[in-house]
Amino acid sequence: MAALGVVGAATALGTHDAEDGVGSLRYPFQGAHQAGIVTPAQDRLHFVAFDVTTDSRDDLIALLMRWTSAAARMTQGKDATPAGALGGSPMLPPEDTGEALELEASGLTITFGFGPGLFRDAEGRDRFGLADRQPAALQPLPHFSGDMLKPELTGGDLCIQACANDPQVAVHAIRNLVRIGMGTVAVRWSQLGFGRTSTTSTAQSTPRNLFGFKDGTANLKAEETAAAEQHLWVGTGDDPRAAWLAGGSYLVTRRMSMVIETWDRQSLYDQEQIIGRAKGSGAPLSGGEEFTDLDFRAGGATPAIPVDAHVRVVHPDFHDGARMLRRGYNFVDGSTDLGHLNAGLFFIAYVRDPRTGFIPVQQAMSRNDAMMEYVKVNGSALFAVPPGVAPGEYVGQPLFAPGDSP
Amino acid sequence: MAALGVVGAATALGTHDAEDGVGSLRYPFQGAHQAGIVTPAQDRLHFVAFDVTTDSRDDLIALLMRWTSAAARMTQGKDATPAGALGGSPMLPPEDTGEALELEASGLTITFGFGPGLFRDAEGRDRFGLADRQPAALQPLPHFSGDMLKPELTGGDLCIQACANDPQVAVHAIRNLVRIGMGTVAVRWSQLGFGRTSTTSTAQSTPRNLFGFKDGTANLKAEETAAAEQHLWVGTGDDPRAAWLAGGSYLVTRRMSMVIETWDRQSLYDQEQIIGRAKGSGAPLSGGEEFTDLDFRAGGATPAIPVDAHVRVVHPDFHDGARMLRRGYNFVDGSTDLGHLNAGLFFIAYVRDPRTGFIPVQQAMSRNDAMMEYVKVNGSALFAVPPGVAPGEYVGQPLFAPGDSP
Repeated sequence: MAALGVVGAATALGTHDAEDGVGSLRYPFQGAHQAGIVTPAQDRLHFVAFDVTTDSRDDLIALLMRWTSAAARMTQGKDATPAGALGGSPMLPPEDTGEALELEASGLTITFGFGPGLFRDAEGRDRFGLADRQPAALQPLPHFSGDMLKPELTGGDLCIQACANDPQVAVHAIRNLVRIGMGTVAVRWSQLGFGRTSTTSTAQSTPRNLFGFKDGTANLKAEETAAAEQHLWVGTGDDPRAAWLAGGSYLVTRRMSMVIETWDRQSLYDQEQIIGRAKGSGAPLSGGEEFTDLDFRAGGATPAIPVDAHVRVVHPDFHDGARMLRRGYNFVDGSTDLGHLNAGLFFIAYVRDPRTGFIPVQQAMSRNDAMMEYVKVNGSALFAVPPGVAPGEYVGQPLFAPGDSP
Repeated sequence: MAALGVVGAATALGTHDAEDGVGSLRYPFQGAHQAGIVTPAQDRLHFVAFDVTTDSRDDLIALLMRWTSAAARMTQGKDATPAGALGGSPMLPPEDTGEALELEASGLTITFGFGPGLFRDAEGRDRFGLADRQPAALQPLPHFSGDMLKPELTGGDLCIQACANDPQVAVHAIRNLVRIGMGTVAVRWSQLGFGRTSTTSTAQSTPRNLFGFKDGTANLKAEETAAAEQHLWVGTGDDPRAAWLAGGSYLVTRRMSMVIETWDRQSLYDQEQIIGRAKGSGAPLSGGEEFTDLDFRAGGATPAIPVDAHVRVVHPDFHDGARMLRRGYNFVDGSTDLGHLNAGLFFIAYVRDPRTGFIPVQQAMSRNDAMMEYVKVNGSALFAVPPGVAPGEYVGQPLFAPGDSP
């Protein structure tokens, strides 16, 4: 564990008990931004997307209040409610499911997002009186060439991202939030991830994805506060309809199944040409070390970094400087009918505006990126991530606040 | 991590570099017994079952040789082959997939098992000339009442259990073994687990399953060497047809989906009556602390531990003293069509003879155990686990050794 935080520092940093192990790492739940975005990427993920099954605005707000309370508690290593797993009446169901009883916070963060369907459902209905506050950028993502989306892995009215260094802690958090939501929301899809594929802090070493390559070398880092203001956080003037989203962000997920058996049959040379980096060091094919800038002119007419190499196709130089904060995880979900492993990358990215920060990059990737021959995207979703929660507030309160309701 | 081993000790103990973290924990691959059985249960699991797709005995033996070599290397933190991820010709596919390049052994163990189909396939054919060496106890498990088995999650000709404290290490091991087997075997099913549910060493604290209860309190422990000889390891005289299995064991898997939404609606009192232990401490309802012996007479006509409580139904006192070494893991595999989490316990147990050590216990559990109302078993398999590998041998060599071939 390279990146234990210190007491009282910024949101991206956590606290831990000096005499304990990494399990005691705790991140504050309240702050200007939600935790789990610039927080140094934890090792494990449990992500869930919900359909809202009620038409009652009051029920939806009540759920957000209960979720806020439970998330604030669980991120500090506590049970989901004060009565918890053992403190209530023995004649009633326990208020917490109990599987994390002896476990510490383990760096748990819980991050909430709102999908387009919260503002206007598939039939166009404005169930919760929120339609005129729908951010202009919060629309279902366009079709990208090659996408083979499964409806049961795509979309959602609400989402929760739970990240922790102990998977049982992340699963416990999602399970108890799902339970709290029963009758108001239903799970649409969920995804576990076991190996982070990106670094969100310069204090972390770069992990590898299931193609065997270092991933996230050029990722937006928590320490780049000016770049984060420019590329990550929604500004106060960004969208007059959605002033409530200032200090928030947009969350994109893409479930990228990897055709790993085919990938594994490519030569090392071809793999490196496809990615644009050396497999061992992570250095760009234009030379240098892992963190050396890419030189797309190196090699001249036969560029050292091919024009269809992944790192070139998605590079900010070709997208008006667009950068995103990636926070993806590897997954293996059993096996396929063909006797292969059902494995891949659950891509997560946070951007200030998906229309400039994500969609053009994804379009270029879908059309021109040599790597996409080895990837099948079968899930996809976009959520608006409200800003952090102030004391006494519930998550997303500025969207619902009666004082400035429509 | 409570249980780091010391240099040069027994198979159950590992070695690690004192100056490094827990990642450097290494267990020897060779020994009297395979590692991964009495080894202190690691935190993560990737289990895979294969169908053998060849009829060639030579190809099967060649695969076992390659698997042995790769497993011996990977458990010591090395690439799957000497050329590995980066050392071969760049014009050839890398021999290792590379996603574990900077990762250490992380306590990895790799354990191989042979299913009934290796000796006689579904059509009764003796594909590999092994039928007269089939252990009498190695037959497909009988139907247990309530079982709802899915063929795609059940059975298999071969299995590999990979356990490690880093899931990417376990996944890398299985992926590379699957890759080595291409053309000879095909994946039938695979299962990832994220939280061990049993302690196999007295040095480990008892973890919790997704019912929120401590699990594995009464498990057979590595330190009980006499009990292991009696209940775990196949003896030289156990089965005249299967002398090759002496020093081995039998591995039972049961994929137990938990109906957690229904379970979560039961009162704390009812949950404890169903399990027979206090949810918080793990103490038996007959009193005492977690490790206090169960007293089934406490309470007289209204027994403190109900007659249908899980701990009573499976207790050795009611099964001629039968004990097993359990090594299960929690799992969450996405969500169901009903908007619930697809969660449960991937039960793994090792026994000397499933006919006495497992089947009667499972029959009692299926019929009488109150807990089974909250469990749906949809996968099941039995494998014979050959003894440990000596230097220069391949795994299972005594079964195939030309000197005493049929």
